[in-house]
Amino acid sequence: MTTPLLNDLIKALTALPGIGPKSAQRIAFNLLERNRDAARRLSKVLDEAMTRIGQCTLCRTFSEAPLCQLCASTNRDPAVLCVVETPVDVLSIEQSASFRGRYYVLMGRLSPIDGITPETLGLPALERRLAEGEVKEMIVATGTTMEGEATAHYLRQMARRAGVTPTRIAYGVPVGGELEYVDGTTLSHAISSRREY
Amino acid sequence: MTTPLLNDLIKALTALPGIGPKSAQRIAFNLLERNRDAARRLSKVLDEAMTRIGQCTLCRTFSEAPLCQLCASTNRDPAVLCVVETPVDVLSIEQSASFRGRYYVLMGRLSPIDGITPETLGLPALERRLAEGEVKEMIVATGTTMEGEATAHYLRQMARRAGVTPTRIAYGVPVGGELEYVDGTTLSHAISSRREY
Repeated sequence: MTTPLLNDLIKALTALPGIGPKSAQRIAFNLLERNRDAARRLSKVLDEAMTRIGQCTLCRTFSEAPLCQLCASTNRDPAVLCVVETPVDVLSIEQSASFRGRYYVLMGRLSPIDGITPETLGLPALERRLAEGEVKEMIVATGTTMEGEATAHYLRQMARRAGVTPTRIAYGVPVGGELEYVDGTTLSHAISSRREY
Repeated sequence: MTTPLLNDLIKALTALPGIGPKSAQRIAFNLLERNRDAARRLSKVLDEAMTRIGQCTLCRTFSEAPLCQLCASTNRDPAVLCVVETPVDVLSIEQSASFRGRYYVLMGRLSPIDGITPETLGLPALERRLAEGEVKEMIVATGTTMEGEATAHYLRQMARRAGVTPTRIAYGVPVGGELEYVDGTTLSHAISSRREY
C-alpha cells in the first residue's frame, strides 16, 4: 500500500550497511514527515561525495585532492610509515593521537582466492617507496584475520628486502579490560606475546 | 583528517533518525569503499521522493497521485473510516490484514501548545466528510499519549455531532504477552477495560 516511489526509497535505504527493511521504512517515513530539507541535502552531498572523492596518489586513502592532507603535511615524520587496511583505520589511529608518521592504505588485504593480489593493494608502489630510502621503519597494522596476517607476512619480507625495519602493532588484552571478559584467542595471544618488564 | 566533503557526508548522514556520528562514519566509509553505485541510486531516489511525494487529497496520507491507492480502490468499505496519526500506522494496519474500510491520516495529534490545532490536522475536512452521511462508523486509532487521547476525545464529539458511531481500538495486554513482562500502565488499562465473555 506504499507508493511505488516510497517503495523505491525504502529499498534504496537498505543499501546502507546496518539498515534492514524495518529501519529503512522508519527512516523513509520520518524523512518525508519532517525532514525533507535534510534529506535533499543528504541526496546532494551523497552524489557529490561518490563522484568527487578519489584516492590520494601517494598513500591511497580517500581524498578529493591528488594528495591527502596527511601526505601534504610537512609536520609528519617521513621515516615511519604505518600500513593499514582501510581509510577508517587511519582515522582511528589519528584519533588516538599516538602516531606522527605517515600512512599507506592498502584498501583491503591479500586474498588471492578473491582475486586480491599484491598489485590490487598497491604493493609494487609501496616497494618502490621503501627503496627510496626515506622510510626507516614500517609499522604493520593489518588485522589479525588469516588474510591480515598473510598480508603482514608479505609486508615483512618486503621491508627486510629494502632494509627497512618491519614492526607489528601489539595485539593483546585491551587496556582496562578484565581478563574474565577477554576471549580465549586474545588471551592466548597476550600470553604468547608476553615481554619482560 | 577526513576530507571536507567526507565530513559533510558524515554530517548529512546523521540527519537520518537513529544514526549517530559513529554509524554515520561507518556508513560513509562503507559506501565509498564498495557501494558507490548504490549510494548514487539512493541519492537520486531520495531527491525524487522528497520532491514528488505529496499527500492524498482525500485521506492526507503520502501519495504521488492526487488520490492514494486505498482511496482510489473500489474494494474498500466506505462505511467504516479509521483515523490514524501517521501514514506508517496505515501500513501497520494494512499489514495486519484486519481492516477493509478506509483511512484518514491526521499527520500528527492535537497539541495547541505546539501550534497543532484541529485545522493543522485537517479536522474541518473530516467533519465535512462525516456530514456527507456515507461513513457509519469511525474507528479512532490515535495513540495513548496525552495528545493522542485528547485527539480521540475531540474526534468522538465530532462523530457524535454527525450521527456517526465512534469506536476506539482496544488497548491492553499484547496477544501472547506474559503478564509478568507487561508494564503497569498497560496492565491497569487492561483490567479497567475488561469485558464479560
